[in-house]
Amino acid sequence: MAETGSERDAADEDPMGLDPRRVEPILEAVEARDTARLTALLEPLHPADIADLLEQIGPSERRALLSLWSGEIDGEILSEIDDSIREEVIGNLSPEVLAEAVRELETDDLVDILEDVEAPQQAIILAALDDADRVAVEAAMGYPEHSAGRLMQREVVLAPLHWTVGEAIDHLRSAAGLPEQFYHVILVDPRMKPQAYVTLGRILSSPRDALLRDITEDSFRTVEATDPEADVAYIFNQYHLISCPVVDAGGRLVGVITIDDAMNVLDEEHEEDILRLAGVGDDSSLSDGPLATARQRLPWLVVNLFTASLSALVITQFEGTITALVVLAALMPIVASTGGIAGTQSLAVAVRSLATRSLTSANARRVVLRELGAGMLNGLALAAILGGGAMLILGDPWLGLVLGLAMICNQIVAALGGVLVPLTMNRLGLDPALASGTFVTTLTDVMGFLAFLGFATLLLL
Amino acid sequence: MAETGSERDAADEDPMGLDPRRVEPILEAVEARDTARLTALLEPLHPADIADLLEQIGPSERRALLSLWSGEIDGEILSEIDDSIREEVIGNLSPEVLAEAVRELETDDLVDILEDVEAPQQAIILAALDDADRVAVEAAMGYPEHSAGRLMQREVVLAPLHWTVGEAIDHLRSAAGLPEQFYHVILVDPRMKPQAYVTLGRILSSPRDALLRDITEDSFRTVEATDPEADVAYIFNQYHLISCPVVDAGGRLVGVITIDDAMNVLDEEHEEDILRLAGVGDDSSLSDGPLATARQRLPWLVVNLFTASLSALVITQFEGTITALVVLAALMPIVASTGGIAGTQSLAVAVRSLATRSLTSANARRVVLRELGAGMLNGLALAAILGGGAMLILGDPWLGLVLGLAMICNQIVAALGGVLVPLTMNRLGLDPALASGTFVTTLTDVMGFLAFLGFATLLLL
Repeated sequence: MAETGSERDAADEDPMGLDPRRVEPILEAVEARDTARLTALLEPLHPADIADLLEQIGPSERRALLSLWSGEIDGEILSEIDDSIREEVIGNLSPEVLAEAVRELETDDLVDILEDVEAPQQAIILAALDDADRVAVEAAMGYPEHSAGRLMQREVVLAPLHWTVGEAIDHLRSAAGLPEQFYHVILVDPRMKPQAYVTLGRILSSPRDALLRDITEDSFRTVEATDPEADVAYIFNQYHLISCPVVDAGGRLVGVITIDDAMNVLDEEHEEDILRLAGVGDDSSLSDGPLATARQRLPWLVVNLFTASLSALVITQFEGTITALVVLAALMPIVASTGGIAGTQSLAVAVRSLATRSLTSANARRVVLRELGAGMLNGLALAAILGGGAMLILGDPWLGLVLGLAMICNQIVAALGGVLVPLTMNRLGLDPALASGTFVTTLTDVMGFLAFLGFATLLLL
Repeated sequence: MAETGSERDAADEDPMGLDPRRVEPILEAVEARDTARLTALLEPLHPADIADLLEQIGPSERRALLSLWSGEIDGEILSEIDDSIREEVIGNLSPEVLAEAVRELETDDLVDILEDVEAPQQAIILAALDDADRVAVEAAMGYPEHSAGRLMQREVVLAPLHWTVGEAIDHLRSAAGLPEQFYHVILVDPRMKPQAYVTLGRILSSPRDALLRDITEDSFRTVEATDPEADVAYIFNQYHLISCPVVDAGGRLVGVITIDDAMNVLDEEHEEDILRLAGVGDDSSLSDGPLATARQRLPWLVVNLFTASLSALVITQFEGTITALVVLAALMPIVASTGGIAGTQSLAVAVRSLATRSLTSANARRVVLRELGAGMLNGLALAAILGGGAMLILGDPWLGLVLGLAMICNQIVAALGGVLVPLTMNRLGLDPALASGTFVTTLTDVMGFLAFLGFATLLLL
């Protein structure tokens, strides 16, 4: 992380990103209301690390820090900061500071911020922009949420199809307002429809009289502004794109999406998958307080309360069996719980495969049969261990048989449920990660108790 | 996804990536052993989509397809294909085809392939390379697995600090063997230590006599070749890098990592997190057969069999209580199961936050206290619902009280366990996603049964 040998030693102790040991001195400066010291401590930090700092400290510390230091806040910090506290942070800024901070941002970052704030702050931000930026931002806000149109930047670098490398370089040298980051020159026809693109590397390494259209890239493809951002992220990942032109319904160039935006979308989708699978609202954040956290998690807990009552209802039907043989009450959770683990395993693989589009209608049948096979094999293996163990320890071969049979049934149900529930939700157009976890564990709980107590009633009484 | 209006309509029906409807005709061509038709069907597909196709079809179909078509396979397909079947696919290729296919690949992709194959195939691949590539690949293989050195490409574009834009362009025009993708010119001192970099966009838009060192980027940073790839992926994501020079222990430039490689690493880490949390081995793949799938999942199932026996042991201690009041057997899974959901919620948030480095020693205490608070609040809410419901339905206020008290205890244990288990594993240098799920559900099961049956024994008998 450093350039010279001696600097390197110091850097080695410094973890990448925000060093947790830097946080304490910063909070001390805030408490001492020492703006000079605070500024000196924050000044060397990258905006992304300052955003992390603001996320990691408590709400009252955050307010105190911003009141001492808000004049220095720049647009990049606002752009980096997590959605969950962005509105709070922006609310702490004076209109002048806010207007100053957003002025330097690119349109895609502005759109990202505007999506999250209330109308009065939106008005302040829009008023701070120059006319061209405001028109561009308002146009982007006209596209649906989570669409390519919201993700793209309007600043594009383009050239007519007939230009040479020399003409392109001369144009770039004289052009004003080039985007901060660009990786391709997009070739458009006279109706502004993108036809191909050329990497800057190819332009730089080709002779001045080479035609741009002779050095284009195979990877060229476009997305439509109304395409969902998830599809955009997928094609960046699948085809290793670095930038991708965006067109309107008529095929005309309206913007360009770069890889950093696509990477953000992928990251958010991963977060959504992992949190939804676990039954956590995906607008949850580490900066939320206990009340907000409790509120986000309560809905699925309540759902689970009712689905778990289904298990209770099943068990109630077998009260006679349990009264006759109370050891069954102790053993029944083993079958249910191991089924829950198997269901979760099968589910995680299916949800992940659907997210990466490697589980499709082309191989769904094979994958379901594979899960069935795996469920049977593991059911047999676990039945042998558990049934055998029960026979040895409890000295009752019939009880061992009941445990083994119930285990086989439940492992098969778990493996199938783990893949069929998300496949069904996907076919219904729902996010397969949503609710699947609760459905599948309810299934394995109910089936586990039913199979175990049912076989026990048949074979032991 | 297309350029003109009429093409657009057709493309709209075509999902992004490999269209599942294309798979059937391809498999028919394979079955008919019709190489011409097969080639015509595969020819328009992107290598990444052909790799997906090979992953989605069954092993015997894959073998048949490769025997008909293997002459056409190119290096990019081998590079795109999932690790789990790469060795099988390569094993189906003749040495000549394999040698031909790998020759065009960049060194980072070659290293990725070599890591996965056995010694004889390694020898074939190494023998196929020209001397410079072989030396570069062998040097990369000398770095530790999962390090920056394995990830980087050796082909770099550099310039001395004193060059002008014009000199850089002239050099690039005459240089042979430029990397396929590059985004920066790296400025090095006379000892080959990188000092800064310049984007190609800045070079193209600056006058010929501008000095490169006057148009460098703030985002410049380097990584050491022995740094873990996870750290590299983190800084790409955190600081929005597009490429990053790699240095040796002496600070000298040895290669460069580009964003597509970093994106791959992030993707693999997400996969690892989601699969490990669910207790699935992270070398699992959708192309595995039932036996391989069962084998990957069995270890955690067996572990769970033993941890679930702990719950059984707890319940056994209360056999007298259950015999006296058999309805307890039916109600006890509700408390345990709702605790399991709460533990999973808290766990998913903690694991994800540790992975994105937003949960650190700076805010661990605040997050643990927050979980404690959220657990208490949800415990109270669920206790009111469940306890109240039990009083109404079962008509027994004391039973309602027992359910409510047990629920509060278990929600608190779940919320704390969900964050403390991964924090502890992280502090011990272990992957927090590994095994945490089983630990936490064991904790909530044992605590759920213990609290419920314990309070029942105290208050109901």
